Amino acid sequence: MRWGELASEPCSAARSLAVIGDRWTLMLLRDCFLGVRRFEDFERRLGISRGIVADRLKRLVAAGVLRREEYQQRPARREYRLTEKGLALHPVIMAIVHWGDVYYAGEEGPPLLHRHKACGCDFAPRLTCSACGGAVTARDVEVRANAAAAAP
Amino acid sequence: MRWGELASEPCSAARSLAVIGDRWTLMLLRDCFLGVRRFEDFERRLGISRGIVADRLKRLVAAGVLRREEYQQRPARREYRLTEKGLALHPVIMAIVHWGDVYYAGEEGPPLLHRHKACGCDFAPRLTCSACGGAVTARDVEVRANAAAAAP
Repeated sequence: MRWGELASEPCSAARSLAVIGDRWTLMLLRDCFLGVRRFEDFERRLGISRGIVADRLKRLVAAGVLRREEYQQRPARREYRLTEKGLALHPVIMAIVHWGDVYYAGEEGPPLLHRHKACGCDFAPRLTCSACGGAVTARDVEVRANAAAAAP
Repeated sequence: MRWGELASEPCSAARSLAVIGDRWTLMLLRDCFLGVRRFEDFERRLGISRGIVADRLKRLVAAGVLRREEYQQRPARREYRLTEKGLALHPVIMAIVHWGDVYYAGEEGPPLLHRHKACGCDFAPRLTCSACGGAVTARDVEVRANAAAAAP
């Protein structure tokens, strides 16, 4: 399979990864969630070529994950903001960051702390069930094909 | 920045993505969570070259995400199993799949359904706070540097 074919696979992981399954794309998204919005800031923070930043931002705009907004005219300056579809990637980024916090932080703890505004506490993300609210780990899940969505 | 330098960045996203920030790696991990364990099955399901499958599996074993286990001698046959560190990636894969379910499934619904064994219901993953148990979205989080982990 080629990468471009992933999007047409009847698999939600493949469809998602056709859009976000790229290291620099995920690093750009991480920065978006930290409030970075301007091309030069993405470029400086990631330390990668202008061309890669431009390409990845363009793809994310085309996919409806980011939108370009003009914040200044003469000269025109644009910034990149997460759309609702982009904001919906928050659990993906949080899960990636948390795994790094658990397995790759030094003795001093993780580089960044996340505070839940509603309760005021620093927190770790927990995956829970939309039906019962209980904790969900890999061992708690049974997966089956959705007959209604099976290819004819 | 080069890709290989990501692992030494004081950023948990970068450290994680140095290990899992690759489309085929994430597709392999998705298959691991679906119970796939054998080289030939990964190869057949993903439809990519033997070389890519071998390279990605080798890296995941080296990172402690998968372990190789012999399930037959003469001839030796090995399978790949998620370690605890690998199982801890479940929220990452679930979040990626769920985003695809929401934004890329057809009218028939998502290709796969996930059942929470504890309550018996099909569910969607929800990100909640480890401190208060409440829902967490991107807008509910404040991020700050961990002074203790700041580079000297």
